[in-house]
Amino acid sequence: MLCEAASALGIATVVLAAAPDDAATEAAGDVVVGEATDPVALAALAARCDVVTFDHELVDLAALATLEARGVRVRPTTGALFAAVDKAAQRRSFSRAGLPVPAFVVLDGDADADLAALGDLAARLGEVPVVKAARGGYDGRGVLVATTMDDAIAAVARWRSDGVAVVAEAPVAFDAELAALLARREGGDAVAWRTVETDQVGGVCREVRVPGAVRDDTADAAAAIARRVAEHLGAVGVLAVELFDTAEGLFVNEVALRPHNSGHWTIEGATTSQFENHLRAVLDLPLGATTLVAPAICSVNVFGAEGGTAPGALAAALAEPTARVHLYGKAPRPGRKLGHVTVFGTDADDVAARAWRAAGALGTPVPAGLGARR
Amino acid sequence: MLCEAASALGIATVVLAAAPDDAATEAAGDVVVGEATDPVALAALAARCDVVTFDHELVDLAALATLEARGVRVRPTTGALFAAVDKAAQRRSFSRAGLPVPAFVVLDGDADADLAALGDLAARLGEVPVVKAARGGYDGRGVLVATTMDDAIAAVARWRSDGVAVVAEAPVAFDAELAALLARREGGDAVAWRTVETDQVGGVCREVRVPGAVRDDTADAAAAIARRVAEHLGAVGVLAVELFDTAEGLFVNEVALRPHNSGHWTIEGATTSQFENHLRAVLDLPLGATTLVAPAICSVNVFGAEGGTAPGALAAALAEPTARVHLYGKAPRPGRKLGHVTVFGTDADDVAARAWRAAGALGTPVPAGLGARR
Repeated sequence: MLCEAASALGIATVVLAAAPDDAATEAAGDVVVGEATDPVALAALAARCDVVTFDHELVDLAALATLEARGVRVRPTTGALFAAVDKAAQRRSFSRAGLPVPAFVVLDGDADADLAALGDLAARLGEVPVVKAARGGYDGRGVLVATTMDDAIAAVARWRSDGVAVVAEAPVAFDAELAALLARREGGDAVAWRTVETDQVGGVCREVRVPGAVRDDTADAAAAIARRVAEHLGAVGVLAVELFDTAEGLFVNEVALRPHNSGHWTIEGATTSQFENHLRAVLDLPLGATTLVAPAICSVNVFGAEGGTAPGALAAALAEPTARVHLYGKAPRPGRKLGHVTVFGTDADDVAARAWRAAGALGTPVPAGLGARR
Repeated sequence: MLCEAASALGIATVVLAAAPDDAATEAAGDVVVGEATDPVALAALAARCDVVTFDHELVDLAALATLEARGVRVRPTTGALFAAVDKAAQRRSFSRAGLPVPAFVVLDGDADADLAALGDLAARLGEVPVVKAARGGYDGRGVLVATTMDDAIAAVARWRSDGVAVVAEAPVAFDAELAALLARREGGDAVAWRTVETDQVGGVCREVRVPGAVRDDTADAAAAIARRVAEHLGAVGVLAVELFDTAEGLFVNEVALRPHNSGHWTIEGATTSQFENHLRAVLDLPLGATTLVAPAICSVNVFGAEGGTAPGALAAALAEPTARVHLYGKAPRPGRKLGHVTVFGTDADDVAARAWRAAGALGTPVPAGLGARR
């Protein structure tokens, strides 16, 4: 989707892809084949680019830092990336900056110290803490919302034995999950999109509603937090902050320094998409307007079904004439995120029902009544 | 732009390009290098595709017909393409079908017969006819709005000596130039976008306004003509009909069986773009909705300036935050169409002024007062 946005602006792209038939290669101007963690491949990529950026975070920060030291323009910078994606570093740094994060401890000592710290937090909270690997997780992986201390302890031991720090934190009883999205340039110029409501199951987003049930004052407060996070990190490009909306206010859940699944709706739903503004920001070009094109927008993720995608699935999805279908060209596997569908219009339930209809036609399991749950 | 739309839907594209660095190769999934008129290159392309389609008409119809005869799915068909793009065949066929075309004669005999027919038409009209080469023209090329009979006669002689038939027809005194756009599937399903007003200079479109000064009843009449043209031709894919709006009603000027410059505004301005619906139509998939996203939309073409594109031109254009900039990746030459800018909003003059500001920043000569000419 970044490459599609680049193509429109006449900006040439070179993609570092693990295989020559990777999904991204279809839209890329050119391809360097190699792993995102391979210093040789990274150097080959950097040699052909004015700026290196990312659409995922499973990168080798040390290899990127080496490139940066050689003068390669990496945006967001390795420093900002580290402070955001390493959950231990992030929670410590946000907490010091006064950003609202759940009560937490970082487990990065020896086994006894980790166990003691986890126990102390559990006693303080009066419940089993959520445990998260500091690195390498996404879409619910690397996070355990444990129901027993034994499970939490086992997960901590497993990650710690892999040399990964762990964050243990208070489970948050939330009324809603929100996502605030902005794009920021080097000098500090930033534009925010409307804060959205996300529907997550097992840490995986399945639906985004704009504006959803997010009141304007809550939306503004979330956007203000995202701006503080962006300033704090010195983020350049798109920054997504996932938040919990609770009776005690907003808490930062996750942060991503790249175009984010919760912002895919911006492709059709806003004057400028997150992908285009990410490109503009990392190239230090003026940012585009983020105005909504309609009062109600819904985006639903497409997941692989058992047995693969049925023949005729695309035709069935496109039979919903308002559906904006995006398929990423990935091989279908059960549960794999294969694309998304966006619908915009005037009625929130109507656009959601249409988006779910198209996503369902593409094989996504549709929860009973979800299309019209409000 | 077709490739960008295909990429979003997960549809793989192979582009036949004259050179490996052609603009379209940046967005294409894969490339076959060769001329559009080369039968060997066409066969190599066809071998890799489920369907062959076009984004220009400078093709070799005989070579395409040979492919079709071998069972290759060519959409629109060679027959429809011939009947549309050969202006002599088109005027004859439309006239027989009762479609509104200016008074015309086809000049395809010997020199004396051509001269006599041209003279007869001029006498009948009481003015110098417009002369058009039946094949090979676009963007004003191959058309002469002559002021003297001598000029018209010379142009006819030149084209006829190249073996090209010529259409001579009545100059049309029009109040406005319109373009009607639709997409049609094999079985006849069709969707139309809102008829637009175009501003043409020397046969080259520089501005499209949606809806412009086109009244709803005129827009509907133009769309009805486009539907009749599509049915008459058996068109599959996007069909654009350029019309003259006159005191005597609408007249068909030009017809194109492909996504058309007058429809570039649909990328952001309509629920489904002409590019996506062209793909859907040629793949026989359901067509998407064509609803407008805003009450006023303006699209302005970007032309190459003397001295090439200035450094910082893209940044200057993007400083207009509502501008949707599309650059085609073509080498800048004075007068060459390099891209377009679309702005949507609520006020027609405001969106036009913004679009012209961005196009001007990209080097397009901006006529005095054009940004707010109404």
